[in-house]
Amino acid sequence: MNPNIVKAEYAVRGALAIRAEALRVQLERDPDAAKTLGFSSVISCNIGNPQQLKQKPITFYRQVAALTEFPELIDAPEAAVLFPDDVRARARMLLDAVGGSIGAYSHSQGIPLVRQHVAEFIGRRDGHPADPEHIFLTAGASPGVQLLMNTLISHDRVGLMIPIPQYPLYTAGVTVFNGRAVPYYLDEPAGWSLSVRELERSLQAARAEGTEVRALCVINPGNPTGQCLSEANIREIIEFTHREELVLLADEVYQANTYQADRPFVSFRKVLKDMGPSYASQELVSFHSISKGMIGECGRRGGYFECVNISQPVMDLFYKIASISLCPPVAGQLMVDLMVKPPVKGEPSYPLYEAELGGIYASLKRRATVLCDAFNAMEGVTCQKAQGAMYLFPSVRLPARFVDAMQAAGKSPDTEYCMALLNETGVCVISGTGFGQKAGTWHFRSTFLPPEDLIESFIGKLQAFHTAFLTKWR
Amino acid sequence: MNPNIVKAEYAVRGALAIRAEALRVQLERDPDAAKTLGFSSVISCNIGNPQQLKQKPITFYRQVAALTEFPELIDAPEAAVLFPDDVRARARMLLDAVGGSIGAYSHSQGIPLVRQHVAEFIGRRDGHPADPEHIFLTAGASPGVQLLMNTLISHDRVGLMIPIPQYPLYTAGVTVFNGRAVPYYLDEPAGWSLSVRELERSLQAARAEGTEVRALCVINPGNPTGQCLSEANIREIIEFTHREELVLLADEVYQANTYQADRPFVSFRKVLKDMGPSYASQELVSFHSISKGMIGECGRRGGYFECVNISQPVMDLFYKIASISLCPPVAGQLMVDLMVKPPVKGEPSYPLYEAELGGIYASLKRRATVLCDAFNAMEGVTCQKAQGAMYLFPSVRLPARFVDAMQAAGKSPDTEYCMALLNETGVCVISGTGFGQKAGTWHFRSTFLPPEDLIESFIGKLQAFHTAFLTKWR
Repeated sequence: MNPNIVKAEYAVRGALAIRAEALRVQLERDPDAAKTLGFSSVISCNIGNPQQLKQKPITFYRQVAALTEFPELIDAPEAAVLFPDDVRARARMLLDAVGGSIGAYSHSQGIPLVRQHVAEFIGRRDGHPADPEHIFLTAGASPGVQLLMNTLISHDRVGLMIPIPQYPLYTAGVTVFNGRAVPYYLDEPAGWSLSVRELERSLQAARAEGTEVRALCVINPGNPTGQCLSEANIREIIEFTHREELVLLADEVYQANTYQADRPFVSFRKVLKDMGPSYASQELVSFHSISKGMIGECGRRGGYFECVNISQPVMDLFYKIASISLCPPVAGQLMVDLMVKPPVKGEPSYPLYEAELGGIYASLKRRATVLCDAFNAMEGVTCQKAQGAMYLFPSVRLPARFVDAMQAAGKSPDTEYCMALLNETGVCVISGTGFGQKAGTWHFRSTFLPPEDLIESFIGKLQAFHTAFLTKWR
Repeated sequence: MNPNIVKAEYAVRGALAIRAEALRVQLERDPDAAKTLGFSSVISCNIGNPQQLKQKPITFYRQVAALTEFPELIDAPEAAVLFPDDVRARARMLLDAVGGSIGAYSHSQGIPLVRQHVAEFIGRRDGHPADPEHIFLTAGASPGVQLLMNTLISHDRVGLMIPIPQYPLYTAGVTVFNGRAVPYYLDEPAGWSLSVRELERSLQAARAEGTEVRALCVINPGNPTGQCLSEANIREIIEFTHREELVLLADEVYQANTYQADRPFVSFRKVLKDMGPSYASQELVSFHSISKGMIGECGRRGGYFECVNISQPVMDLFYKIASISLCPPVAGQLMVDLMVKPPVKGEPSYPLYEAELGGIYASLKRRATVLCDAFNAMEGVTCQKAQGAMYLFPSVRLPARFVDAMQAAGKSPDTEYCMALLNETGVCVISGTGFGQKAGTWHFRSTFLPPEDLIESFIGKLQAFHTAFLTKWR
């Protein structure tokens, strides 16, 4: 077996998630399970999967999707009352763009019309036009990131700089492709901020070990840490990568999930373009997804990456790799189109779309605050605010007796804490060990996605467990 | 850049397909293009993409898909007339199986209910029960094959035995994962049959070069060659892999596309299970897809692989790799469900389903024969019958003057022949060079998917081009 696959770790779907799934099956099959276990359902906060936790899909998106699945509905008189005119028009346009059926393979780089709409979206967002030929549609951001890693890692001394804590896709990918993860640490007390001094330390340390550092991965807004980088910070990061000749990989999938007016999302691309022609050699790849934002269409698998200042021969390689898997899922590609080209004022679907989107956003923002406050109210727990994304990453001061006992048994204390929480309450969160953390600190990542009407009872479960846990191990 | 990616070749989406796409764009944008080019449309026979060539989707499948996209339709009185009861019931069942929304990530191995239905399908097909826990749903067969290759290839001397001619996914995958393709040749005059003597020759030659041969890849029915293996042949292949301790990778995506009553599809799994407990150590992975058969839902990206006699720790690795990309597209998973559990007699959707399926099948069978006969009527062309799949792979005796001229220019004669055909007629087929062929022979692969009402004009174009080509180069 490939030893790189044996070594790779991907905690958000690892031991805790597997145990959660086993509990779910037990609750489903065994009528006495709720009594035995002490809880009646599993609450999956291990992964940003909003619709699993009952977030309602946006109606406009799903209406268009239904019509592209079954085009006979578009002109069926019986269906006229069910689908507004703009939904029908959009479905017709998308069906034209795929040659009549979503059942055909598309262009391997993605449907040309959708790429054109993505380019227009990026142009509007950044104030700098984009080129559809530089955009690759993907089955979500993850396969895009893996494609980039596969291309960049040409031998086993190639290193990619990765934030710690990080979304474990990054270390897992580097391990699978047999490269080296070069960690740089985010500054927790300063709201998980990213300092260029730390980037420099990390880079020099890696080079001293003989690592050929090729790229810097940045997650903004942060996952699991939720920070949003300021424009000034992004500028100095770009100066750093330009000076050090590093490719920038910007994971910007949470760009619509920002919750503080003074810290809006600014794309790496916008700042780079604003910096002018002397930075025109700075290579940047930016990733986006339909799985996050207020869309949450995770199961569909859709997203894109944009290449900025990447040479044509390299993009030709990306195309070749993409073509070996034929094409991204067409329904995911169409959802990318809907994401970047939503209904606008004056169109029949606009009022409902706006209300649904606004409702989800406002609720996410409320839940982020409520849950953060609840964590901070727990003994020995401190939690930075989420400026963005869907996660909180509280620090937990675990009792020394517990830490010693677990470490003596060769176990990771924070993972055992999370496993106990899961077994006693049905709440599944992922331990800091899965994301990386400074030695001697313990964390867990929780989404703030449980439905708003359940969030109080969710918090109650967490607090009761934590109090009992401290009492037991004090 | 990763040199393995630079080296990899994937002809069915390579230079010919890229040129075809450029022609399509030209015809779309330039009103004078048809006059300049001498044809008004591109006919893509480079890839098995039935719905691109106007094969109509199966109504039942798409009705269920529309309801799972927009569940409000299920009980809408306006929609009652549009959706039969069994469609509504199936949509409800599938929505239950995904927790209410297809927008949530599913289990990384695939939705448990769908895996259960796949296991029941395999059990009925082979007369030996299957285990849902041994089934992995995928985004089509291609990512499944790549996952297996990634796992098996642990260093650069690992070899996988691959048929020549082959579907180029296999050589591309082995190159990307930095293994060695160990070629074994199919016997063209004997209807592209597979002889164990040739397998033995190939294996010994590879071992003599220091290659650690790990697996035998078989495509049955064959792609691009269309042969169906007999049960006796499969048995001796299994005896060979068992003796030589090779994993069997069986690409069985064309299992529903067989056209000769005396050569039905028999799965490797059935034969292996029939061979009894002394073969219980024979590892086998079999791949299937929703893209082929009479379904042709390529754009949706769905399929599965089944592990037979694969140990749990190895399946745990498969799960880990699958989990890094989160889950296969849910709409593809649901289509797998519909494929393995179609409407049955007595259900409201059955008559239409049966008629649509039967119509597509009969038409494919007719087109396979008509096109094969047309090839055989062309000067210097010989074509084996398609016992299965969607392709013909005729051998073309190219004029010596043309071959010499191309080779002197460092070009591959068959590719240039196909490029000339494309530029002069708009018909896109892929040269034998992309699939592999015996030295000194030239081929091309064409799907037999052009719509039946166009097949005569399609054949006319091919024949006129070929005759003019021979005249020019004689």
